[in-house]
Amino acid sequence: MDHVIVMAGGLGTRFWPESRMSRSKQFLDLTGGGSMIVETVRRLLPLVPRENVWVVAGEKDAPHLSARKLGIPPGNILLEPEGRNTAPAVAFAAARIESRDADAVIAATPADHAVANAASFRSVLKKGFRLARRTDRFVTLGITPDHPATGYGYIERGTPFGAGRKDVYLVRRFTEKPDLRTARRFLRTRRFYWNSGIFIVRAATYRNRVERFLPPVHRELEKVFRDGGKRGFRDRLRRAYARMPSISVDYGVLEKEVGILVIPSDFGWNDIGTWRSLHEFLGGAGKNVTTGEVVLSDCRGSLVRSDRGVVAVIGMENVVVIRSGDAVLVCPRNRSEEVKGVAEEVKRKFPALA
Amino acid sequence: MDHVIVMAGGLGTRFWPESRMSRSKQFLDLTGGGSMIVETVRRLLPLVPRENVWVVAGEKDAPHLSARKLGIPPGNILLEPEGRNTAPAVAFAAARIESRDADAVIAATPADHAVANAASFRSVLKKGFRLARRTDRFVTLGITPDHPATGYGYIERGTPFGAGRKDVYLVRRFTEKPDLRTARRFLRTRRFYWNSGIFIVRAATYRNRVERFLPPVHRELEKVFRDGGKRGFRDRLRRAYARMPSISVDYGVLEKEVGILVIPSDFGWNDIGTWRSLHEFLGGAGKNVTTGEVVLSDCRGSLVRSDRGVVAVIGMENVVVIRSGDAVLVCPRNRSEEVKGVAEEVKRKFPALA
Repeated sequence: MDHVIVMAGGLGTRFWPESRMSRSKQFLDLTGGGSMIVETVRRLLPLVPRENVWVVAGEKDAPHLSARKLGIPPGNILLEPEGRNTAPAVAFAAARIESRDADAVIAATPADHAVANAASFRSVLKKGFRLARRTDRFVTLGITPDHPATGYGYIERGTPFGAGRKDVYLVRRFTEKPDLRTARRFLRTRRFYWNSGIFIVRAATYRNRVERFLPPVHRELEKVFRDGGKRGFRDRLRRAYARMPSISVDYGVLEKEVGILVIPSDFGWNDIGTWRSLHEFLGGAGKNVTTGEVVLSDCRGSLVRSDRGVVAVIGMENVVVIRSGDAVLVCPRNRSEEVKGVAEEVKRKFPALA
Repeated sequence: MDHVIVMAGGLGTRFWPESRMSRSKQFLDLTGGGSMIVETVRRLLPLVPRENVWVVAGEKDAPHLSARKLGIPPGNILLEPEGRNTAPAVAFAAARIESRDADAVIAATPADHAVANAASFRSVLKKGFRLARRTDRFVTLGITPDHPATGYGYIERGTPFGAGRKDVYLVRRFTEKPDLRTARRFLRTRRFYWNSGIFIVRAATYRNRVERFLPPVHRELEKVFRDGGKRGFRDRLRRAYARMPSISVDYGVLEKEVGILVIPSDFGWNDIGTWRSLHEFLGGAGKNVTTGEVVLSDCRGSLVRSDRGVVAVIGMENVVVIRSGDAVLVCPRNRSEEVKGVAEEVKRKFPALA
């Protein structure tokens, strides 16, 4: 069967002040359609049965995770005692899934990305499931770039996979976020895709690669699932997480694996990494986008959000103004990347408010 | 004796969101030294005894008026049933003062202006008292302008008052707020002063001019003070105010009076009419001025104030960001004049928040 693992363990302060230590981006309603994670699960349910959708998140996030709101069985919410990045998170979920369905294929997806065309997304994912099952390879989704973004990692394709095919390629390499010049070069070659962070693989194969590339992760999780059933499970899990390294799937697994495939995709994907990218996703440059009680006078191209009280802005262009809880942020749209650093400064200076 | 009337009846939404319908500018602590009105009274007390300082304000402002905080006797706070602008306010206070001190000279001053050099201010005021008593004329204080401000009315001087004197002039005319070109011309002639709104005159003379220029105001107040003592005073006052016209001292009295004097003055006066002028008074262009829990990252020339919670601003120049109560304002420094209009729009759109 096909299963999806929604990775919801991220912290993220790039959406400060809406995101906080106690409320990460995936639990925010940024697009107005519900929280990012609810939107992510909703997008999947027409493709896989609800019993096959799994959410991995931190124990601290439990208050934000309602199985009813997510529309999945309560037992499908897997809580990690502490964050160890994505490689252990997927390994934990894959082990749980494999214990129920030895022949499972898993798709792992971040909980906090936006997709404009959900139907197209599902058809690509369906193709990925088939491909991963048939080939027993890792299958990644590469997004055809429409501008030289510097905020994403890229996937360079190699030769087509299968003679004459233009819809699946072997991956030549994964790259870090490039500078603008490099990103422009990437676009010119037409061989690079944005790395969506979504991949598909047989659960047993994922386990096998973790065993090979990340033996401590494999060993610790083996102990959790091997030794006895439910009794003492949480304690075993806690001990295992305390000993596991913190490492991402990208660094820990994909960069060491060979023969990975990439499906070029175009389903209106946006990782909504900053206030600027949210603004672009919601309205595009040049337009005002507002949420809550907002009064704009002679403003252009600005994102203004208020969760309570009124925010009035006069004569500003391309700015972000966010009022959330006890905090207010004002910054130019094109400096949204700096929010993370300022959120950390706020936390240092005013611990009670961070 | 010399008395001072502090006119505190103004409404003012130019300092929205700190000023509201329920809390006018004179009750705000804008400069960090206490509310404007407390600062105004404190500035006067070395010059006149506390029994001779009078505050005229609206009944609705009573909650903001503590005689103890102001340092004056409770009976010196005169509450108007409703606002009728400054001519009736001063007439009311002058009548009250004259009933105690028939030979009184009164200085009337707005409650919400800032003065950088209080000692110099007091010495000018002292001179004004002497001059008004000796000449039985209206004496105004004209501020020597240091830039062609368009936010103030101007006083044009005529001939020197007294042969060879350069410190007192006859007033040639009062002008409205000029446009920039006119203001520049005013400065070049060196004959124009900013109208501080402060004037000094014998109480009996003020009463006489109100009788001549504003008979309905005189008639109504006569009835209030003539008919009986304390019993029924508030009811009589209420009836009188309901019948009086709303008119300023400038329009109603000074523009009709002849032989007014002006003392050229330079005591660091600022009417603090907008966020921009507050910023200039507190630090000057180019400097950041902050109040409350504020984090600035790469900002210049900005005024940022928070009365609760944190306000973080990234990469902005010459902006005003104000968080007060349930509202937030963001605007360029040089568009502070537009705050009044936006405050009115907020009131229309979100009545509960205005």
